[in-house]
Amino acid sequence: MGRDEKLVRVDLGARSYDIRIGRGLLESAGSEIAAVLPGARLAVVVDETVAGLHLSAFSESLAAAGLGHTVIKVPAGESTKCFSQFERLCDEVLAARLERGDAVVALGGGVVGDLTGFVAASVRRGMAFVQVPTSLLAQVDSSVGGKTGINSRHGKNLIGAFHQPALVLADTAVLDTLSPREFRAGYAEVAKYGLLGDADFFAWLEDNWQAVFEGGPERDEAVARSCQAKADVVAADELESGRRALLNLGHTFGHALESAVSYETERLVHGEGVSIGMMLAHEFSERLGLIDAETVARVHKHLSDVGLPVTVQAIPGQLPPVETFMDIIAQDKKVSRGALTFILTRGIGEAFVEKGVDPAVVSEFLKEKLEA
Amino acid sequence: MGRDEKLVRVDLGARSYDIRIGRGLLESAGSEIAAVLPGARLAVVVDETVAGLHLSAFSESLAAAGLGHTVIKVPAGESTKCFSQFERLCDEVLAARLERGDAVVALGGGVVGDLTGFVAASVRRGMAFVQVPTSLLAQVDSSVGGKTGINSRHGKNLIGAFHQPALVLADTAVLDTLSPREFRAGYAEVAKYGLLGDADFFAWLEDNWQAVFEGGPERDEAVARSCQAKADVVAADELESGRRALLNLGHTFGHALESAVSYETERLVHGEGVSIGMMLAHEFSERLGLIDAETVARVHKHLSDVGLPVTVQAIPGQLPPVETFMDIIAQDKKVSRGALTFILTRGIGEAFVEKGVDPAVVSEFLKEKLEA
Repeated sequence: MGRDEKLVRVDLGARSYDIRIGRGLLESAGSEIAAVLPGARLAVVVDETVAGLHLSAFSESLAAAGLGHTVIKVPAGESTKCFSQFERLCDEVLAARLERGDAVVALGGGVVGDLTGFVAASVRRGMAFVQVPTSLLAQVDSSVGGKTGINSRHGKNLIGAFHQPALVLADTAVLDTLSPREFRAGYAEVAKYGLLGDADFFAWLEDNWQAVFEGGPERDEAVARSCQAKADVVAADELESGRRALLNLGHTFGHALESAVSYETERLVHGEGVSIGMMLAHEFSERLGLIDAETVARVHKHLSDVGLPVTVQAIPGQLPPVETFMDIIAQDKKVSRGALTFILTRGIGEAFVEKGVDPAVVSEFLKEKLEA
Repeated sequence: MGRDEKLVRVDLGARSYDIRIGRGLLESAGSEIAAVLPGARLAVVVDETVAGLHLSAFSESLAAAGLGHTVIKVPAGESTKCFSQFERLCDEVLAARLERGDAVVALGGGVVGDLTGFVAASVRRGMAFVQVPTSLLAQVDSSVGGKTGINSRHGKNLIGAFHQPALVLADTAVLDTLSPREFRAGYAEVAKYGLLGDADFFAWLEDNWQAVFEGGPERDEAVARSCQAKADVVAADELESGRRALLNLGHTFGHALESAVSYETERLVHGEGVSIGMMLAHEFSERLGLIDAETVARVHKHLSDVGLPVTVQAIPGQLPPVETFMDIIAQDKKVSRGALTFILTRGIGEAFVEKGVDPAVVSEFLKEKLEA
């Protein structure tokens, strides 16, 4: 492990694994993978965009470590998380004659990670899987916890598997190639970890967010603390039967907003939906008398400072009426037997799962916000 | 539990479940399922053939227990275990608005069970799954142990998941509707359990096989002892890293034969391939000096007595040359890093896993058998 590298251990018994975080990790990826999966052959899944930026450095590192590999390219974008790409990738991994001890590697953002993980979970009923996340969102969220999947015409991430990686390599230098908007969107999930369970981390972010954006050691620190926060929740509840739902802070409203704009990323990307959703979750908690206006203002200030949207009005174009939002929320997969489940909060770092929220109260609250 | 019903508990910690075995269980299926999954709504997957024979009795039983359900029909036959049916079923389960606590039910043989299990494993990253196996093969083999999957153009069962059911209901009366050939083929797996690990059971089968075929209490006994044998192996090795490979006794040769006839079931069905494969595994073990000719003769007599094929010459039509068989065996998913793994035996009930068998010795043995 390099001098300035950070390590987060995800503790899941026989399925435990390390997340390594640091600048320039891509160049030592081959030896890191060879140490965990000696002798494995690899199928590397990458999208066209990431391939142009990072594939040659990654391939050279694999070759230097003596790891044979096949590259499978997919188109960039959410529409790649579909049945036909799932089938194609399964076929290509089998065509490369990879065996059970070999590994499938996701080099890319959340789309490539989710799709590739489901392929790794399914080929031969489970092959080794390595995540090399290249977006901030993937580094702090989707590459930790083993959720994999594709989209269905009934909704996002509805088909998939829980499949833990054998190793996650998060090179924080590759984040320099992200657009400011994409970096900010990923940052919404970083802020989420503070808001849901760690008031100290949120306060640290209020003081240090500029350094996180600029790429200093604070960026590695923020990624590591986020991964640790998620790893702790996942270790306590791998299959999402309880506590893991806290990670959905801001996501019920956020997903509804993404769905309402038909996932048009020109209007709203996931992290922006989460930012507005977290704001709504705090405002809704205030409405229910759980937190005071000062707490809401503090969240509002931080998300605004970093440049994230904080109101539904920040979304360009027309939004559907409240009834549409309520339908989307009712269809959300986090619904349990008809009752609405929301992540609410009693303060910074004090989120909790509330089952059985009255849909009428949500509807009235949301109607006000849409008409504000 | 009915007076004459048998119960096998599959012990897998939090994923433990019961296999209930008995005549007429289909009529009480609704209350059995409701007891394990109270309040669940069901999607029942069934093929056209089984639907004609057993769906109305099953549906009535569900309705009587107050269980709402949707029926999803698929074509009968192995070609149903494909990506497009997987996609279609996932979509239909979601269209029925089933939630995580609801269940997907497989009413049918191995094809429906394997496909449906993979759908249950994948929709919402894992829904409850109930198996109602209607073939002898499914009752004693494919419905026990949690292996689910579909076929790829690279081979059978190459895409799937380990997903344990919440309940298995094996109604041995429905086996009366099987053709003699189909019943016999399933019986090959019953005999396998004796041969691989239980000499007493094999001796019992030698004495009682006619009653098993006729449908007396001996049939329930044979199904229960088979399920128990498989459950014991699965409990010791859920993810097939070691001991579970014993269940492949006869299957390396058997799969090669099935593949060699392009899975044309007019020529060879799975259980027939297993019967010939088990015979070959014993003859190969004799060749290696592990067992004597008398043991081989005893296996030959029993499989012949029940009407199962015991030589490659029993397969109608031309077979490919030995080189083709060796290619198929080398591609088999049970190959580990290029070495050939075979299940061999030291006597009735004494099978063991032998890794690193010399391909040249296998080739020479098989050549003789093909030319006999």
